Amino acid sequence: MDLQAFFNPKHVAVVGASADPDKVGHAVFKNLLEYPGGSVYAVNPKGKEILGQPGYKDLDDLPATPDLVIVCIPAKLIPALMRRLVQLRVRAVVIISAGFKEIGEEGRRLEREVASIARMGRVEIIGPNVLGILNARDGLNASFAGKLPLAGDIAMISQSGALCTGMLDWASSNHIGFSKVISMGNKADLDENDFLAGFEDDDDTRVITGYLESIDEGTRFIRTATRVGRNKPIIILKAGNTAAGAAAASSHTGSLAGTEAAYDCAFRIAGIIRARTIEDIFDLAQGLAYQPLPKGPRIAVITNAGGAGILAADAIEGQGLTLATLSDETRDTLRSFLSPAASVNNPVDILGDAGEDKYRKALDAVALDPGVDALLMLTAPQAMTRPTDIAQEIIKGTEGLDKPVMAAFFGDAAIREAVTLFQANRIPHYPSPERAVEVLVAMRRYKKWLDAPERKIPRLPVNTNKVRKIIKNCRKQGLLRITEQDAKAVFQAYGLNIPDGVLATTRDQAVAAARKLGYPVVMKVVSQDVVHKSDVGGVRVGLGSSREIEDAFDLMMLRIPKLVDGARIEGVLVEEMKRGGREVILGMTRDPQFGPMLMFGLGGIYVEVLKDVTFHLAPLTVEEAMEMLEETKTFALLKGVRGQQGVDIRSIAEALQRIAQLVVDFPEIQELDINPLRVGINRGDTLALDARIALIPATTEG
Amino acid sequence: MDLQAFFNPKHVAVVGASADPDKVGHAVFKNLLEYPGGSVYAVNPKGKEILGQPGYKDLDDLPATPDLVIVCIPAKLIPALMRRLVQLRVRAVVIISAGFKEIGEEGRRLEREVASIARMGRVEIIGPNVLGILNARDGLNASFAGKLPLAGDIAMISQSGALCTGMLDWASSNHIGFSKVISMGNKADLDENDFLAGFEDDDDTRVITGYLESIDEGTRFIRTATRVGRNKPIIILKAGNTAAGAAAASSHTGSLAGTEAAYDCAFRIAGIIRARTIEDIFDLAQGLAYQPLPKGPRIAVITNAGGAGILAADAIEGQGLTLATLSDETRDTLRSFLSPAASVNNPVDILGDAGEDKYRKALDAVALDPGVDALLMLTAPQAMTRPTDIAQEIIKGTEGLDKPVMAAFFGDAAIREAVTLFQANRIPHYPSPERAVEVLVAMRRYKKWLDAPERKIPRLPVNTNKVRKIIKNCRKQGLLRITEQDAKAVFQAYGLNIPDGVLATTRDQAVAAARKLGYPVVMKVVSQDVVHKSDVGGVRVGLGSSREIEDAFDLMMLRIPKLVDGARIEGVLVEEMKRGGREVILGMTRDPQFGPMLMFGLGGIYVEVLKDVTFHLAPLTVEEAMEMLEETKTFALLKGVRGQQGVDIRSIAEALQRIAQLVVDFPEIQELDINPLRVGINRGDTLALDARIALIPATTEG
Repeated sequence: MDLQAFFNPKHVAVVGASADPDKVGHAVFKNLLEYPGGSVYAVNPKGKEILGQPGYKDLDDLPATPDLVIVCIPAKLIPALMRRLVQLRVRAVVIISAGFKEIGEEGRRLEREVASIARMGRVEIIGPNVLGILNARDGLNASFAGKLPLAGDIAMISQSGALCTGMLDWASSNHIGFSKVISMGNKADLDENDFLAGFEDDDDTRVITGYLESIDEGTRFIRTATRVGRNKPIIILKAGNTAAGAAAASSHTGSLAGTEAAYDCAFRIAGIIRARTIEDIFDLAQGLAYQPLPKGPRIAVITNAGGAGILAADAIEGQGLTLATLSDETRDTLRSFLSPAASVNNPVDILGDAGEDKYRKALDAVALDPGVDALLMLTAPQAMTRPTDIAQEIIKGTEGLDKPVMAAFFGDAAIREAVTLFQANRIPHYPSPERAVEVLVAMRRYKKWLDAPERKIPRLPVNTNKVRKIIKNCRKQGLLRITEQDAKAVFQAYGLNIPDGVLATTRDQAVAAARKLGYPVVMKVVSQDVVHKSDVGGVRVGLGSSREIEDAFDLMMLRIPKLVDGARIEGVLVEEMKRGGREVILGMTRDPQFGPMLMFGLGGIYVEVLKDVTFHLAPLTVEEAMEMLEETKTFALLKGVRGQQGVDIRSIAEALQRIAQLVVDFPEIQELDINPLRVGINRGDTLALDARIALIPATTEG
Repeated sequence: MDLQAFFNPKHVAVVGASADPDKVGHAVFKNLLEYPGGSVYAVNPKGKEILGQPGYKDLDDLPATPDLVIVCIPAKLIPALMRRLVQLRVRAVVIISAGFKEIGEEGRRLEREVASIARMGRVEIIGPNVLGILNARDGLNASFAGKLPLAGDIAMISQSGALCTGMLDWASSNHIGFSKVISMGNKADLDENDFLAGFEDDDDTRVITGYLESIDEGTRFIRTATRVGRNKPIIILKAGNTAAGAAAASSHTGSLAGTEAAYDCAFRIAGIIRARTIEDIFDLAQGLAYQPLPKGPRIAVITNAGGAGILAADAIEGQGLTLATLSDETRDTLRSFLSPAASVNNPVDILGDAGEDKYRKALDAVALDPGVDALLMLTAPQAMTRPTDIAQEIIKGTEGLDKPVMAAFFGDAAIREAVTLFQANRIPHYPSPERAVEVLVAMRRYKKWLDAPERKIPRLPVNTNKVRKIIKNCRKQGLLRITEQDAKAVFQAYGLNIPDGVLATTRDQAVAAARKLGYPVVMKVVSQDVVHKSDVGGVRVGLGSSREIEDAFDLMMLRIPKLVDGARIEGVLVEEMKRGGREVILGMTRDPQFGPMLMFGLGGIYVEVLKDVTFHLAPLTVEEAMEMLEETKTFALLKGVRGQQGVDIRSIAEALQRIAQLVVDFPEIQELDINPLRVGINRGDTLALDARIALIPATTEG
């Protein structure tokens, strides 16, 4: 993706450039005048001069065809303008104007029209309803944001223009620089996928940050982010997480918010670093842009105040990293120049009267220790402390070091100069050790994602034809819910074992079936009209004699039609009954953004009471299937606890993979579950005891 | 507790006042010279003049007897000085000097000596090893901190002098004012309990904040904090939470850190608001000092940027508060002056071009809504936004309002003036909606604590004499571990049911016992030498015939002495066996700071795999006992799920109360557990099936 025309235009036109300082079209033009990289033209209906620059009534009058056009005119005039821009072969357009999707149906229609003209005419649009775009490196401010941010190597995309302004203002005060900034607005044409791809190729960008409220093409997003993320870390704050947030999101942008679990899965697959707050975004961006990634979880802390060291230690252990154990050699070195009251264990406490020299020596010694993966430098300014000099020594001491170093100095005015020095020299500084540690945790997780082997989705041998036939048959009958037998046949075609069973329509057939299968057996009612079999007495287990079979059959035929008014009963399914093992639940629902999302959980109360389930988007690698199991709290029960023998875990993982393959192969399947899958000690014991498949309505297909 | 002598002295002497500007004794004296409330004298060995003030060789030479003495001389000279101060009837001493407990055994001895002299002579000490004390309202800076903080109504105590400096510096830049600040250091004499009590009576203090690494007298602390907390909120950052943090804490202050669970319980009982970070302390302090407490959980958000509203909504729902539903009336009012594209639902989005007038009108309308308990005002500065004017209107609009209002403006430079205005007018401002919401959550929790009825510990009728006899008997025999029968007898004396059982020493006795109890029975080996009975085959359940009894008896006698070398076996316990119900675990360990801590959990895998347990300090109210049950994830299993009948929950709660009473009555009990307590459907079914009690070694008693 080439964003050249947007960020390094030779000629820029502002359509709707205004002489009125209160108008957006004025602010944008004024900001653009500072651009040193090309010429800027004002276009407005009366051809008015603005800020000493000529105004043009018509695009035809411009001295040159613009390669970038910024649009600030009322929404209803924009379709006509777009047609004109297509004719002129303009390639890049930023529509700042609001009045589209965000105001309701009429605006949505207008937006579709504009997008469609653009797409057919091969014009690319950013917006509408945006703050604009900025290229801090090359002095382009095509926005109504107050001023250009500092130049740096962080790229930012934001679905909210207002938050974008706030973030730029905050970053500016905190000396954080940007490469490029894009306010995405309604994303009528270009969206996060395009910008990620664009920043991938941008040499000025090292880290990509984003504020998102919705992702429209989930699968494409995962694919793009996964690729881009290999080269540049992607940090995203996804808003609209909770039900309330999502409701606010949908009234705001009119976009359908994906479910939280699906976003979590998608971000994890794509290696995206998730920010929880706006502060988080920049905390993370600094760590990832300025410092190498830690090769392990072992963090060393150097402090001049015991209390600060304790806070850091709490954060390190509390957040799942480890306090590095320093080698004897390192401790000897530390002991050689520190006073006896100092602590040469991690956190290394060099005491309150420590000057910059002791900081430097301690840093040098600890950085060399092969048991240290990252360093956290703390300073609480005390009577004898010179924070600026300490910062300078830390900066010198970390030159060329291949381990991340972060600083957390306590206070404000006393350390301001030190913090500015850190910023200028790309040492991330945080106002508390806790925040530094949070960034180290994220860097560590990103490193692990980078180091993981490439995702390989194995293709297991299955019988797709059989499934296709079953689904076709259901479609013919207009059924959205597949019968239990057919659902089981689908899973069998995909390599899962199902219990032996016989459909019986009479009492005698049922008895004969049971004899054939061997007692005890299970009997289940078969009826399209019965959704929850158990609730109407439609499931009997442990039937051990012909007498019990007969009783069960007669009672079902007698009672169920009364309980479910007018239910047509096709018969009963008589199945062999297996004992022992564990019961688990496998399921799938389709997320509107990210597609098929698999669920795993231990059956019964573990799902119902403890909600101990895990999710993953299909398809699934072997490792990911195993991770789904391992991430449940109840995994230990499957492995076997207190001397109990474990069950065959691999067969569950394999079943998950087979289901993943099924739902990828058949997008017609809306949701399914196997509840329970019985898992025994041996591979062959694993059986889908009950199964449910629902199809998506035929009209919404394709 | 009267801190008058410390904070409003008429005459202050600095012993160790130095003419050398690099010395702490110089900085302290210089700071004190600014004190308008009394005279300040310099004392040093040579009687040197300092900063134009006369120096005195001896305390006798002072023009008046000081009511406060600040000590900056070497540690080893301090015992002699203290004796002199006792003679002079000085009441208040701050020892800034280090070189005590924190440097090891010798320092610890010295500290004890100083404390003992002071206590006998009725002198009160703050320190040693401190930064000093400050009274910002009255201009007293008896410390080597750079300058006095702003005057305000937040009191602060800190166990770390270095962090204290950092916090004061930070607070000063953020316009946060203090009443009084105390660096507590080693707490040789006065400690957090004294200061809490002191601040309780201090009219200048509205909120008490603290940084603590250890609490020495847990029970006293809970009692004091509970009382003080009724009048003034107490906010505490307790460092040394994790194992690593605690290790760092203990090398730092030499104090034994309590366990995390015990601190959690103690803070909850005492209504203490727990800060997680230093930033947190001040976030919370501002909310609690400046605003009324919310009467309910319903939060309204007013914003000029949709994105900001979404972030706030995410935080509100994510943190367990609720987004207020606005009344039709409120929505009508909002609609009357907002543009149609605005959102009159909560979050109320008054759109990007909203001026201060719309903010004010929206605030007025929403504040009146009886369905709103608190307001969060957001602003993302955009082209037309005037943050300072908006702040002014918010301030005016909230005058006299009895609901808390908070602000979160995005950005930095653009909103700086607004933030300063907010500070000056006691509207808490936070850099993100998330942080504002965290404070509202804490305020809500504190309000609930205040509103809760007084804790009433019921005294249940029990047989203390019987327990006293059993323990006395164990002591006589030198046993630390009480036998299972005796442990059960103890619990029975405290009103718990135990299964019928008979001690049998021969095979025939065992058979006779089983016949008497009725089959099936349980047989357990009885031996002081066997710690884990099950591990050596010492527990057999479901024995259903005399043959099975005989076999089990012979096998235990044969095998156990081989497995546990030389084990002396006293016989077997034959007990009735009950089926059904749920098994739970009750236990108690003694926390070094806070005393008896009770544990509850569902038995078996729920404790072992899921670690689903809750803790509470003894004694226990009826409500607290029920809460211990309700807080487990598995509570639903006790109540009954999926149509299963629940068990008698009240009998578990009562058992917890009885155990609480037992461990309060008998401090000799070091730890105990009932594992399992079997709980049936009816009250009478609840039985302590196995029990264990360990005593503290007799030497450490008293």
